Amino acid sequence: MSETSPTAKGPDFSRGDGLLPAIAQDSRTGEVLMLAYMNAESYAETLASGRAVYFSRSRQRLWRKGEESGNVQLVRAIHIDCDADTILLSVEQIGGAACHEGYSSCFFRRVTPAGLEVVGQRVFDPAEVYGKK
Amino acid sequence: MSETSPTAKGPDFSRGDGLLPAIAQDSRTGEVLMLAYMNAESYAETLASGRAVYFSRSRQRLWRKGEESGNVQLVRAIHIDCDADTILLSVEQIGGAACHEGYSSCFFRRVTPAGLEVVGQRVFDPAEVYGKK
Repeated sequence: MSETSPTAKGPDFSRGDGLLPAIAQDSRTGEVLMLAYMNAESYAETLASGRAVYFSRSRQRLWRKGEESGNVQLVRAIHIDCDADTILLSVEQIGGAACHEGYSSCFFRRVTPAGLEVVGQRVFDPAEVYGKK
Repeated sequence: MSETSPTAKGPDFSRGDGLLPAIAQDSRTGEVLMLAYMNAESYAETLASGRAVYFSRSRQRLWRKGEESGNVQLVRAIHIDCDADTILLSVEQIGGAACHEGYSSCFFRRVTPAGLEVVGQRVFDPAEVYGKK
């Protein structure tokens, strides 16, 4: 819990391994859509383009959200937390679904004593969006 | 992007280094309050106690949110994402402020072309809550 630097201009990518968690929240509904990671390059491109660009840890490359599905995220605001090591994006989710499984939010499953309960509604069929190549 | 396992019961702590990011969202306002990390032990205690328990990376120990300030988080719901590697807590934030700097949310600073702008309102004075020991 470092003190806030009054001279800070943005996220502190010197923390951790240069990858910071970035939360995407729907700018209209407040729904938390997903969490991904950003490095300095993806953050800079997000600022420049106005669209959310993440860094894919599994693919080890920039991930321009929606590059395959067309469901881009238009960034309406960016906030950072007190430690400058987490990014909060307020976004307009094109297509109405952030999750590659077709749900509006990746958090479509609720933990219950009986196990996981799917509480989200599917907006699209993943097979139609990703499956026909 | 693994497929969802229908038999999954909760977060997959085998991913990463056993620490998963956990987002706390205000259950009434939808405001994103903070992001911290959980290990399996802190998650289990969260389930058992109904209060948010994180794992402090800087202190390398369980962090029972509010243990010092009294501003505990009562957990109203838990969701996990499609990859089961991020946790979303819906919480009632006692004291009205999640941030150790006295703001309701840790994301009290907005990124603007001119630098960071404080957009949150202080709920308490950190010196009064933490400073007099």
